[in-house]
Amino acid sequence: MKLPFINKPTLILDEKRCRNNIQNVADRAKNAGCILRPHFKTHQSLEIAEWIRSAGVTGITVSSTSMANYFASGGWNDITIAFPFFRAQLNDLKKLEKTCKLRLFVNETADLEYLNQNLVNPFDFVIEIDPGFGRSGVDHQNYEQMNALIHTSEILEKCSFHGFYIHDGRSYQAKGANQIKKVISTSISVLKSLKNKYPQASVSLGDTPSSSVLEPEDLEGMDELTPGNFVFYDWMQVQIGSCSLDDVALFIVLPVAQRFENQKRAMLHGGAVHLSKDFIFENEIQNFGQQVSFSLSDIVADEGSFITALSQEHGTLSGVTHKTGDDLVWICPIHSCLTANLHDHYRATDGRKIEKRILS
Amino acid sequence: MKLPFINKPTLILDEKRCRNNIQNVADRAKNAGCILRPHFKTHQSLEIAEWIRSAGVTGITVSSTSMANYFASGGWNDITIAFPFFRAQLNDLKKLEKTCKLRLFVNETADLEYLNQNLVNPFDFVIEIDPGFGRSGVDHQNYEQMNALIHTSEILEKCSFHGFYIHDGRSYQAKGANQIKKVISTSISVLKSLKNKYPQASVSLGDTPSSSVLEPEDLEGMDELTPGNFVFYDWMQVQIGSCSLDDVALFIVLPVAQRFENQKRAMLHGGAVHLSKDFIFENEIQNFGQQVSFSLSDIVADEGSFITALSQEHGTLSGVTHKTGDDLVWICPIHSCLTANLHDHYRATDGRKIEKRILS
Repeated sequence: MKLPFINKPTLILDEKRCRNNIQNVADRAKNAGCILRPHFKTHQSLEIAEWIRSAGVTGITVSSTSMANYFASGGWNDITIAFPFFRAQLNDLKKLEKTCKLRLFVNETADLEYLNQNLVNPFDFVIEIDPGFGRSGVDHQNYEQMNALIHTSEILEKCSFHGFYIHDGRSYQAKGANQIKKVISTSISVLKSLKNKYPQASVSLGDTPSSSVLEPEDLEGMDELTPGNFVFYDWMQVQIGSCSLDDVALFIVLPVAQRFENQKRAMLHGGAVHLSKDFIFENEIQNFGQQVSFSLSDIVADEGSFITALSQEHGTLSGVTHKTGDDLVWICPIHSCLTANLHDHYRATDGRKIEKRILS
Repeated sequence: MKLPFINKPTLILDEKRCRNNIQNVADRAKNAGCILRPHFKTHQSLEIAEWIRSAGVTGITVSSTSMANYFASGGWNDITIAFPFFRAQLNDLKKLEKTCKLRLFVNETADLEYLNQNLVNPFDFVIEIDPGFGRSGVDHQNYEQMNALIHTSEILEKCSFHGFYIHDGRSYQAKGANQIKKVISTSISVLKSLKNKYPQASVSLGDTPSSSVLEPEDLEGMDELTPGNFVFYDWMQVQIGSCSLDDVALFIVLPVAQRFENQKRAMLHGGAVHLSKDFIFENEIQNFGQQVSFSLSDIVADEGSFITALSQEHGTLSGVTHKTGDDLVWICPIHSCLTANLHDHYRATDGRKIEKRILS
């Protein structure tokens, strides 16, 4: 390991682990007969995108037109914008369609007509299905709306119906492969029955836990997987059972600013603006970041030692049992997507800078 | 109001309200005989800093050496770094001391000696007092440590003891002026008794609720106020009672991406990467952002309508009772410091861009 001089919160990315995660999920998708169309919101890096391209990926998923634009600048030309279309996106889409084949999430027939009228090139549209999670898309039982959308697309020249998509965030509440399977089986049933009803449709599943643990037989009938977080994973995914700590590829190194040996506590230079305020509960205590010990290629969790409070730039590390004499603390982030979003680069373990996009 | 075309989450800053907040707290400090040395972590903008300079402020407070460096580049030369000193800061401090008078938070006598040896110019140091909040600093009863620090500073040529500082985050749990007074009275008592013990010491109080509601008689004996959030305020401060909604100067405008009229719900383009995941509870439901209606200079809260769930870029607005036909929704942020941190500029209500620093 060749780290730079660290005097502020610094993201460390283990390229080998990251590439392993990419290959593992690519293999899982292939074995299940699915296309992997990963969500790039997690890493937001053209360089990491190339690692994913090396694993055979050609089509990608993003969550905004500005993110699409960033990746288009890196030569990606088959982009799904996995966010409900709204009309203020139009100007961005008109630029994007010059170099990219676009796949859009559309919920209203009037919007299909609007896009057909205002875009120049053909585009695909996807019906996002809400399986009962209550976020976005068309309710899984609202066949009237699905029929209307598909029927409208058939009479519009530029618009092709591609299929259905579900991101079922409920799998992030699961613990262990069996619970993940159980939670996600509802969404898989919904997609299967939609495929029976609309045989021309492709069906796509979006969450990281499913893509990480479901077996080919569980995924039978699925056409596409679009997870994002799997490139890095994080402490939340370790708790869910999507991965082990040995798979986590992203850590944040924080300088120790003050030690309270008697109270097994330390004050870290690392706050909400470096980690995000996402947390999980650990025995009813908030965990904003799990301490780990890092030596050579071995990483172990320092059980019971985690960040229990965050101000803007202060992090309170509680339960510290050893190594408080160190100047730096390694933290496994709770939610790597949000932590990565707060930084403008990663450091590889060889000290090299890996650029990323900032500010979504 | 002259807003730009908005197709993504956009911060709107009301300059008039912001300047009023600055003047109000400057007047309060003056009436209480205190110096106002505001914390600049909230706005992180050289332009807003000039508005504060116009109110007579010359010394400022920041939370990192990089933030100090940013404001030093704008001509600020009397800077308190309100974060426990740690040795990896040294190189940054050596650059800063070339143009700035520095005031540092130091907890260890060895660190005073280290600074005395390694810095070129004289510097002030402050003892941060932990009044029982459990974040950083020296415990309010640890006189042995205070004596050691003050004694050490007396024999070191470059190092001058300035005084004591308390940021009591417990006032953020209060509701109403009376509770704020009650909560903060403990910290004020601690500072007063320290001043009795060490008459040469200046004493400083750091939280926004106190600076916003305490009367001169409550602040008797205090020498300095260092609040940060008061320039913008936010929905949390409205709930605490530090201000009214009419004082809030920062809003975020989010495009509506999907409407669910039957369920009084809308999906907004605005997620954790635009708002931060800070929330307050509203009748046991998480509120990540309060909807307001904005017309001319009138802003009213849309009672019961707030963001109840956030993904990375999706925000679920629940309880929507009207105006869902609008393409844009105005949100009063829960915690303006963290929301502002996620953006690289503000828009004034006349459409003008106000630059700010990004990534702490």
